Amino acid sequence: MNGEDLLIMIPGPTGLPPEVREALARPAIGHRSQAFAELLDECTAGMKHVFQTESDMLILTASGTGGLEAAITNFLSPGDPVLAVSVGNFGERIGQIAGIFGADVTWLRFEWGEAAGVSAVRDALAQKSYRAILFTQNETSTAITNPVRELAQAASETGALTIVDAISGMGGIEVRTDDWGLDVVVAGSQKALMLPPGLAFVSVSERAWRAAEQAGMPRFYFDLGKARDYLGRGQTPYTPNTSLFFALQASLRLILAEGLENSWARHAQAAATVREGVEKLGLKRFGDPEYASNVVTAFLPPEGVDPKQISSHMLDRHNILITGGQGKLRGTILRIGHLGTVDQSQVSRTLGALEEAVEEAAGGRA
Amino acid sequence: MNGEDLLIMIPGPTGLPPEVREALARPAIGHRSQAFAELLDECTAGMKHVFQTESDMLILTASGTGGLEAAITNFLSPGDPVLAVSVGNFGERIGQIAGIFGADVTWLRFEWGEAAGVSAVRDALAQKSYRAILFTQNETSTAITNPVRELAQAASETGALTIVDAISGMGGIEVRTDDWGLDVVVAGSQKALMLPPGLAFVSVSERAWRAAEQAGMPRFYFDLGKARDYLGRGQTPYTPNTSLFFALQASLRLILAEGLENSWARHAQAAATVREGVEKLGLKRFGDPEYASNVVTAFLPPEGVDPKQISSHMLDRHNILITGGQGKLRGTILRIGHLGTVDQSQVSRTLGALEEAVEEAAGGRA
Repeated sequence: MNGEDLLIMIPGPTGLPPEVREALARPAIGHRSQAFAELLDECTAGMKHVFQTESDMLILTASGTGGLEAAITNFLSPGDPVLAVSVGNFGERIGQIAGIFGADVTWLRFEWGEAAGVSAVRDALAQKSYRAILFTQNETSTAITNPVRELAQAASETGALTIVDAISGMGGIEVRTDDWGLDVVVAGSQKALMLPPGLAFVSVSERAWRAAEQAGMPRFYFDLGKARDYLGRGQTPYTPNTSLFFALQASLRLILAEGLENSWARHAQAAATVREGVEKLGLKRFGDPEYASNVVTAFLPPEGVDPKQISSHMLDRHNILITGGQGKLRGTILRIGHLGTVDQSQVSRTLGALEEAVEEAAGGRA
Repeated sequence: MNGEDLLIMIPGPTGLPPEVREALARPAIGHRSQAFAELLDECTAGMKHVFQTESDMLILTASGTGGLEAAITNFLSPGDPVLAVSVGNFGERIGQIAGIFGADVTWLRFEWGEAAGVSAVRDALAQKSYRAILFTQNETSTAITNPVRELAQAASETGALTIVDAISGMGGIEVRTDDWGLDVVVAGSQKALMLPPGLAFVSVSERAWRAAEQAGMPRFYFDLGKARDYLGRGQTPYTPNTSLFFALQASLRLILAEGLENSWARHAQAAATVREGVEKLGLKRFGDPEYASNVVTAFLPPEGVDPKQISSHMLDRHNILITGGQGKLRGTILRIGHLGTVDQSQVSRTLGALEEAVEEAAGGRA
């Protein structure tokens, strides 16, 4: 298989623009240098724009899950009651992290394929005083985008902190951290930001910093207070992935040149084309269409066909990588990611290959 | 300042060989793909060789400090008595992590500039039953290499686990993980491995895995048991920095082509030349010469001269990055790193620039 020609259509990692690949290959710099301080400053400002926040932005050398751990351990203490609202695999993960670090987790689970129901969340919040509510913005495993703004509104009325996993949607789907009152938001580099994996981004509201003062969960590598102190002098507490910061600078310049709202619109357009294309092939989409994600589409293979047969055909014959289901959806659904560098030509190539794969599968059954 | 010409002579990050830079710029691959499984397999085998171990090798997407956190939290429980042997800033760090996660830390501190005294360590181990002993192989802050083999021998007689921070020395200074009976060893990518920061490496002995079964410290992102399970199917639990794995493959091929023992010898030769050159300039070396590190040399500026004046001269006039002291040595010493891509021409260029800087400082005083 020729890596150059591989078209990556999974919900992250995504393909890398040439500007990003060039930036990755730049010579090393010292991480306690003026050159790095300037790079960190530009990247931090750019990520604040992507998050639509004026709160603090901390950039961690870790993949998104490391950012989730930071979002839990910096703001909570063992025994703190938290409400984990789960609509899929990643909703499970953030609640699981809270539990492992000692939070008293109450689960509010929705059927996979549904979005979180705002009134059910309101009811749950009314029954108990929670320190925080945890949920995903975009649930990659089910291709569902939660009603983030409404969920945050419900939480803020009770005083609970809103801790949001926006790893797979940030940059591709509208998020307005400040306007929507989100306290702690996490994103990852390998999604709509068009970077390799390895950086996590965490925004922290003033209210969350006040909670951090009393938060007793142990943390060292992911200590955000320390990250904030070092950021004040243009550094990170521990050696940052300097190459990825160069790449982040390049990708942010691309995003700013396109315009963030234009990026959201491009993702929406790609999603609409994929959904329409899938349905035209007679395939059944998975999940509540009202909350369908703009960065990933989930659907069922033709009846009686193993999803693996479709994805293998697309990889082996067309060098296009799509993926199957996760967790309880393994072996059931297929997922096409359309984020980051995605454009209409990538979408067309993918849908064309999918059509062939479906036809072959139908032939196989005939 | 022209990044292309910058000569990085700090104890990491180091300069990057062209092969590594090319690898960083490769197109993305999926992290649950056969292509990644093969890459992970080659990298894991290569790192086992560098560590001189046949035990398990886990590669984490984090910088070295993340690896240290993994080395603590996977093998200890809150309340466990541990002996933290510290000879500098990084000896402090590993003990501090243990304390933050609830271990009962007894400190055995040596003067900065000294190596850990084996008989003092034996005495301390005799006074109490410790679950683990923690120490640095190469203490970057003081340019001292500890007598790792002897310390491990002393620990093994008591049954304590040996947890070693080898972040800055691995690959450049002899470490024989299995022969020396080291249970948990941590390395980082941005040192002798000639990579950007962003990967941490942790080897785990069978004895350490048995301890892990009872270890109660909380861990999620750095869960090594989960990393081992996923490694069995050619994956990592959370999205790995695929670009850095490509780069690691390239650097391991360079290291294997050179030969690990030849790499150790090249570092020893570079160190000898730097030490001799520093002394020839009439500068006083810092630290016990018997334990002088082969990857970094520490020395004092000419009397009455601010170390910053020397390092600024070298950066501004010669585009060579050296560094000062850390922690309590800030403002006192200078440090030259000689690791990774280091060769005699880099060393000569650095010593030539140092000579000029020292002459200028002397002129300023006259």
